[in-house]
Amino acid sequence: MIAFEDLPAGRIIPLGDLVVDREDMLDFARRFDPQPFHLDDEAAKTSIFGGLSASGWYTASLWMRRWVDVILADSTSQGSPGGRELSWLTPVYPGDRLTFEAEVLSARRSKKRPELGLVEFEGRARRDTRLVYRFIATGMFTARDAIPGRDEAER
Amino acid sequence: MIAFEDLPAGRIIPLGDLVVDREDMLDFARRFDPQPFHLDDEAAKTSIFGGLSASGWYTASLWMRRWVDVILADSTSQGSPGGRELSWLTPVYPGDRLTFEAEVLSARRSKKRPELGLVEFEGRARRDTRLVYRFIATGMFTARDAIPGRDEAER
Repeated sequence: MIAFEDLPAGRIIPLGDLVVDREDMLDFARRFDPQPFHLDDEAAKTSIFGGLSASGWYTASLWMRRWVDVILADSTSQGSPGGRELSWLTPVYPGDRLTFEAEVLSARRSKKRPELGLVEFEGRARRDTRLVYRFIATGMFTARDAIPGRDEAER
Repeated sequence: MIAFEDLPAGRIIPLGDLVVDREDMLDFARRFDPQPFHLDDEAAKTSIFGGLSASGWYTASLWMRRWVDVILADSTSQGSPGGRELSWLTPVYPGDRLTFEAEVLSARRSKKRPELGLVEFEGRARRDTRLVYRFIATGMFTARDAIPGRDEAER
């Protein structure tokens, strides 16, 4: 199980890649971001994006799914209070292969709740070498020495 | 059509409200944020959230949908480069009634592209009087005097 101690500053975590699926992207846009350039090929062609592009929230959600699968699913995660910078740097199109990663920027124990560690990380998505999305956020993780039942399990 | 000039600093824009739908919330979590406290009532009870709670990205996406419906759908929006603060302040639960709004913090013409205006706004979601989500972001909107075909239409 991944705990606070496993996420030191400087750790770079590859989160795999995927090809953006047109139907899945459209489904998200219909539900949450029904702007013409996210829904309609013809309208998108004459838009600033030059073609049907993903909602930025879809790209963020794709990143989150990779982060859950690789890190949070088997971790001491206690959620996130948010982040301080979120950038959509260039449009994402159906068929793009995106590569995801995270880099731990800092890691410290909470003063108020010493059993918790606060991990600040930058999440990133790239198409080839080009950064398309980044988000600097904080995750809260229980420290290994504070996992309930740990003492019993190690006896 | 809503253009840059319609979004001056200080404007507060009510975005309506909704009741968080359990099945829709679970569907989002299954696709993008399958952590136990977003998926499973029993696991959530013993979690930091005390009960099944929404993915923060779901709350953000609900806000976005309201912003699209009230502002972007009939506007000169040219997308967003991102934002500088995103906070999930307290958990959101199924059945919560959330009220959404936006407040324009600043509005200025782009120096590089004078036909565009950059609108910085704070998006918010509340449950009763309690803020549950906020995001300070920038939207790009074409100015009314630069809308293509405007001169012809007014003749």
